[in-house]
Amino acid sequence: MNAVTSDLARQADQLSSDVVRPIPGSRKIHVAGSRPDLRVAMREVVLERTPTLFGGEDNPPLAVYDTSGPYTDPDVAIDLNRGLAPLRAQWIAERGDTVELDGPTSDYGRQREADPKLDAIRFANRPRPRRALPGTNVTQMHYARRGIVTPEMEYIAIRENQRLDALTDAGLLAQHPGQSFGAAIPMRITPEFVREEVARGRAIIPCNINHPESEPMIIGRNFLTKVNANIGNSAVSSGIAEEVEKLVWAIRWGADNVMDLSTGKHIHETREWIIRNSPVPVGTVPIYQALEKVGGVAEALTWEVFRDTLIEQAEQGVDYFTIHAGVLLRYVPLTAKRVTGIVSRGGSIMAKWCLAHHRESFLYEHFEEICEIMKAYDVAFSLGDGLRPGSIADANDAAQFAELETLGELTRIAWKHDVQTMVEGPGHVPMHLIKQNMDKQLAECGEAPFYTLGPLTTDIAPGYDHITSAIGAALIGWYGTAMLCYVTPKEHLGLPNKDDVREGLMAYRIAAHAADLAKGHPGAQARDNALSKARFEFRWQDQFNLGLDPERAMEYHDETMPKEAHKSAHFCSMCGPKFCSMRISQDVRDYAAENGLTDATALEAGMKAKAEEFRATGADVYNPL
Amino acid sequence: MNAVTSDLARQADQLSSDVVRPIPGSRKIHVAGSRPDLRVAMREVVLERTPTLFGGEDNPPLAVYDTSGPYTDPDVAIDLNRGLAPLRAQWIAERGDTVELDGPTSDYGRQREADPKLDAIRFANRPRPRRALPGTNVTQMHYARRGIVTPEMEYIAIRENQRLDALTDAGLLAQHPGQSFGAAIPMRITPEFVREEVARGRAIIPCNINHPESEPMIIGRNFLTKVNANIGNSAVSSGIAEEVEKLVWAIRWGADNVMDLSTGKHIHETREWIIRNSPVPVGTVPIYQALEKVGGVAEALTWEVFRDTLIEQAEQGVDYFTIHAGVLLRYVPLTAKRVTGIVSRGGSIMAKWCLAHHRESFLYEHFEEICEIMKAYDVAFSLGDGLRPGSIADANDAAQFAELETLGELTRIAWKHDVQTMVEGPGHVPMHLIKQNMDKQLAECGEAPFYTLGPLTTDIAPGYDHITSAIGAALIGWYGTAMLCYVTPKEHLGLPNKDDVREGLMAYRIAAHAADLAKGHPGAQARDNALSKARFEFRWQDQFNLGLDPERAMEYHDETMPKEAHKSAHFCSMCGPKFCSMRISQDVRDYAAENGLTDATALEAGMKAKAEEFRATGADVYNPL
Repeated sequence: MNAVTSDLARQADQLSSDVVRPIPGSRKIHVAGSRPDLRVAMREVVLERTPTLFGGEDNPPLAVYDTSGPYTDPDVAIDLNRGLAPLRAQWIAERGDTVELDGPTSDYGRQREADPKLDAIRFANRPRPRRALPGTNVTQMHYARRGIVTPEMEYIAIRENQRLDALTDAGLLAQHPGQSFGAAIPMRITPEFVREEVARGRAIIPCNINHPESEPMIIGRNFLTKVNANIGNSAVSSGIAEEVEKLVWAIRWGADNVMDLSTGKHIHETREWIIRNSPVPVGTVPIYQALEKVGGVAEALTWEVFRDTLIEQAEQGVDYFTIHAGVLLRYVPLTAKRVTGIVSRGGSIMAKWCLAHHRESFLYEHFEEICEIMKAYDVAFSLGDGLRPGSIADANDAAQFAELETLGELTRIAWKHDVQTMVEGPGHVPMHLIKQNMDKQLAECGEAPFYTLGPLTTDIAPGYDHITSAIGAALIGWYGTAMLCYVTPKEHLGLPNKDDVREGLMAYRIAAHAADLAKGHPGAQARDNALSKARFEFRWQDQFNLGLDPERAMEYHDETMPKEAHKSAHFCSMCGPKFCSMRISQDVRDYAAENGLTDATALEAGMKAKAEEFRATGADVYNPL
Repeated sequence: MNAVTSDLARQADQLSSDVVRPIPGSRKIHVAGSRPDLRVAMREVVLERTPTLFGGEDNPPLAVYDTSGPYTDPDVAIDLNRGLAPLRAQWIAERGDTVELDGPTSDYGRQREADPKLDAIRFANRPRPRRALPGTNVTQMHYARRGIVTPEMEYIAIRENQRLDALTDAGLLAQHPGQSFGAAIPMRITPEFVREEVARGRAIIPCNINHPESEPMIIGRNFLTKVNANIGNSAVSSGIAEEVEKLVWAIRWGADNVMDLSTGKHIHETREWIIRNSPVPVGTVPIYQALEKVGGVAEALTWEVFRDTLIEQAEQGVDYFTIHAGVLLRYVPLTAKRVTGIVSRGGSIMAKWCLAHHRESFLYEHFEEICEIMKAYDVAFSLGDGLRPGSIADANDAAQFAELETLGELTRIAWKHDVQTMVEGPGHVPMHLIKQNMDKQLAECGEAPFYTLGPLTTDIAPGYDHITSAIGAALIGWYGTAMLCYVTPKEHLGLPNKDDVREGLMAYRIAAHAADLAKGHPGAQARDNALSKARFEFRWQDQFNLGLDPERAMEYHDETMPKEAHKSAHFCSMCGPKFCSMRISQDVRDYAAENGLTDATALEAGMKAKAEEFRATGADVYNPL
């Protein structure tokens, strides 16, 4: 730890005490795997008994997928200045295929280490980087293809199952059959299934050997739909502490991954703080930093600068790189007549480079060398869609689809190197043109995971693009997209603050879950069922706690019915006690049960005689509490 | 006007000055029809010139559909205590098929008139009610079927077209072909087309002869998708002034209709205030008030009380009634095993009544008499889905679909009487089960307009159900639903306040527009195109003004870049000046244009030579402003 207690260190200390607030009504549990150090963290929502009026039974706790990491574990002492414990360090070390380096091997990494002006903002507790031994390949895909089930794969199998066995026991697994458009989702995720999916490239496990703090997760169409949150500062906004705080809030609200899209000063140092404190995979767009290094002049970019940047970031622990290698020279004029041209930052940088040099980019030309770097650290590709449409008008056009074909070609090259690969997608697309994107991606890219931004289904709602895009995200997730990149209400207007991160994540957790329900993911409906049962039985607190954002639900409820007594009220503020359909429904249910009325015939037979009795007892419903 | 200046009158005066804030960047225009008193209000967004950098051309103003009524017309003096001018009064009178009554003919209406305790809250400037002459039918459907094109139909044709001709002239009509699932949307809406659609029951024009203040609008799958906002107080919340204020804000934010769902005291008086000040159709659920009249005891409801309530409300000017006549006795046991039973208030009241009396409801048994009342005032049916699913688990079940079949039967009866009819739909439905709802409704109900609540695509997000349901609403709108009933963030938690109304409406304006785009509604994409062009050209103010909520967009922008200079900045806070893809795109575009590079071949030929030149000029992009 730095001897000088810098402002940043003080801010981090301060933050440490804020970010460990437990999630209401939940407790952290760990499900044991096959070895003592394989303990899969989940969040369990503890439920109340059903009130006697509604049957009086016990409700089993519900385990939910938990992205919040150790921050919500009361048994873990959080210290942002130290970073998280390296959960996977032993697994990585015992594979015996990596070497611990003395320090960064990139020129830039060494420069930053040596610069005393950075002492005050440098993350103090930096681990020494690792790299694959010469000639070895340390990607999860490489292991998978050799038939090895890694601890990461086993962790994921347990995590994805979300204790389905407990649900089966409790009879909570009943759900609608899904419509999965050709997905191959098993009833139960096994470690072997994880291995198979990674081996065939249909799923990726982003887990750089230099990010041992991350809890293994998987991105693939046959697993739960994931959500990515972008954070990062820019030249005109935000500092390091604020970005670390956004990270912690993002995972609390359900981000499965974060991308650090910083473009301002201290990109290198910001990234170190984020990775060391992140239990979720971290992605970047290395060309942003490379551009900073050449003074912001796209044409001045070189393979050498870019290559050094990849190594610099890989040794810090970035789990996936967005690389816009599909922007080919001949595609650029296809964008000239668009309404919004090229809207991807990376895409426009590369387009400019290609035009200026009149040749294919160094990303495309050196793609196999990039693969060599990726496999030395297990960094996954996120093949960037630099020519994605930035408006409804430009959706599904020649430029976009030409690039997608090239991304398919690059996927095959990456797979030749056993490098894990996902493919990025649009953008702005009206609803009826979304499926074509998914279908084409599956066909061109051999079912490599699709990772889409939205898509936004209309351009006319600046300030609400988390919603315009959640609609498209839900649809494309249903069709088969594996990870949804969130959009916040500030999209097109400014950089998101903490509140925007919350709004964006909630919209996207909804989209992802709606997609899982529609695909018929086993167990996906259990949480809906549990929450709806709680709602029907006026277990208010359970309804809040089972929701995606218990604190928000509680706050909204309290606005109308602030008193504590109302949280146990058997009616709600929308209708008041006399108009409560739930209460009346329970009367109907009780009546049917008492009279054995399970179908219409029985009703006809039994009801008339009981009508008088019901009239008498029914009046009870309206007794004021 | 009441001699005593009541608190309410003072509040209304106060409100009058608040609610006339013009919408930024817009002006009210009126498009002339075939007669002097037929002037169709629209909102025109005035646009800036394209900056020279991007071409320097003029951008024609864009007319957008305007639900805000006279409130945003600077030439109209708003006085909530007087109500709006009766736009349609002359049209109704000159048809010569109605009589002006001395006063209310319902028992309850007369009672309220005679009660001096209500003086302080009674709307003073009440018009005398009208009713059809004996033996006549004053519904728009009746006129349509006799071949009459009413001024209302002409108004609607002009309104729906949104000045498409101007768009054609400006070349702004280019858009993606839609996928409309069998809709029959013409390139141009004519008065005759409106008449045909109303005659065949595929569209309705809610326009009670006692609500002449309303600006005619249409609900049908071959017209723009509409949005309904629910307002209304309950026993535990809200007063009259607050509800009138919600009305005005709701239409400002795009509500095509409002439903007054009040269940508290003074339902009658609240409704009068709302209708007299509403330029959009107002719907109600009369059973709520009928239940109040019998002390909240469902079993005590009678046909006589209900009938009197219908007449009371019809003579105030309610434009459509939700009537849960499809809840049949034999369907009730089908709900007994549901997770959430019956969640419709009206549905549960009727179910209880049916069980208690062991017979079909008076709504079903007296349906033809109800039709007689409807056609004497031109009140439209909104056939309520009393057995809609209240959870994902209960979606598309036997109870729901049995009731839908009965709603089809009732639609045919209503049509026999030339009574305009729409049909209500769910509820909570996972994405993949939504289309079945639409398909079944079209088949069972002969394409009568579908009017759905959401549907919510998951149950797990209390506090965010405007989003869970906007996803479902966009989908079902695309499939053919004519009007979407909004859901606010407070759904399941409390009654919406003004902010919630805004959030709910924006989510639903987005869903409706996304649906129009996907269906390929002519001209629907023009606003997206205009906004995206403004975005690309950094016409910030135009981008804000063309959006659904200019004030929100501006506010969000200003949070990050508060200075006035930044609103003319040719970059934005997300990327900063060096990373601006839009700027780079424009370079690419200029370069392509200068070199005649309209396709890849031309590029190959022309670009190499120009590469050096581009390198030189391209550097300009990065000049700081």
